[in-house]
Amino acid sequence: MSERSVTAVALTADAFRPFGDVIAPLGDADMMINDGRCERFHDLARLTFDGGEAGISLFRTDAISLPFTMDLMERHPLGSQAFIPMSAQPFLVVVAPDDAGRPGTPHAFITNAGQGVNYLNNIWHAPLLALEDGAVFAVVDLIGGGGNLEEFRLATPVTVLADV
Amino acid sequence: MSERSVTAVALTADAFRPFGDVIAPLGDADMMINDGRCERFHDLARLTFDGGEAGISLFRTDAISLPFTMDLMERHPLGSQAFIPMSAQPFLVVVAPDDAGRPGTPHAFITNAGQGVNYLNNIWHAPLLALEDGAVFAVVDLIGGGGNLEEFRLATPVTVLADV
Repeated sequence: MSERSVTAVALTADAFRPFGDVIAPLGDADMMINDGRCERFHDLARLTFDGGEAGISLFRTDAISLPFTMDLMERHPLGSQAFIPMSAQPFLVVVAPDDAGRPGTPHAFITNAGQGVNYLNNIWHAPLLALEDGAVFAVVDLIGGGGNLEEFRLATPVTVLADV
Repeated sequence: MSERSVTAVALTADAFRPFGDVIAPLGDADMMINDGRCERFHDLARLTFDGGEAGISLFRTDAISLPFTMDLMERHPLGSQAFIPMSAQPFLVVVAPDDAGRPGTPHAFITNAGQGVNYLNNIWHAPLLALEDGAVFAVVDLIGGGGNLEEFRLATPVTVLADV
């Protein structure tokens, strides 16, 4: 079985926009609240919850390290899925455009500490790939409904390389 | 003007349940996902979004320190509001039962690092009270609609004391 590789680059909102949203406090806040003591960066993610409701869950996973070879991607046709790290650490994000019902050429990003991401509904992405053991992420996604998980086993695994 | 005080105690799910949910990975996960690599603690918060939609925003605020005297509380009649710290640090949570349309006797909690909270709709609570400067919190609350913020200026300020 042959392999293919992709180099992980620093995550930016512009590069990620076709796939989803970067959840980070960029630039000036949209408003000041709480007697002017708190900045609010407002409504940063394009969320969808078709056929169910929004929920908050927690994911906790063992870490991977780069280079990392993966062969599983997934998408959620009915709902977006946001990952908010609960500790200030980077993680790995791998997404792919759709290519006739299967993942196309993958793109890999490493977040900066303090960034979360939101995958748009129906965007192919790798499962959660933490870079530190025991990392906990708050996940905002669709609760209820059905048929919201489509997994795809890549015939040709992808090796994600560090950008060094 | 006289004052009253409350001692902040460690946050637990049981003590907080009348006011909302503790968002933390307690006990065994509800399911294993991603080829068995990831724990999912499922649907941990009682969310409501009446007249609008769920959104994810970020709050960033200067820190306070204990003892802390406060005179502002607020509630959101139409929607729940979850605070998810994006770094592993404690913060201060002050809530109060309703007493004929105004905040009753306050309760104060200090989170353990790694805990978030979700306030039920219509629960009186203090504004975000971080204990470290520059802390960023992801907030899941109602976007759109209107009339979802009710503030109350306490005639008698409350001093929150550390539990030492």
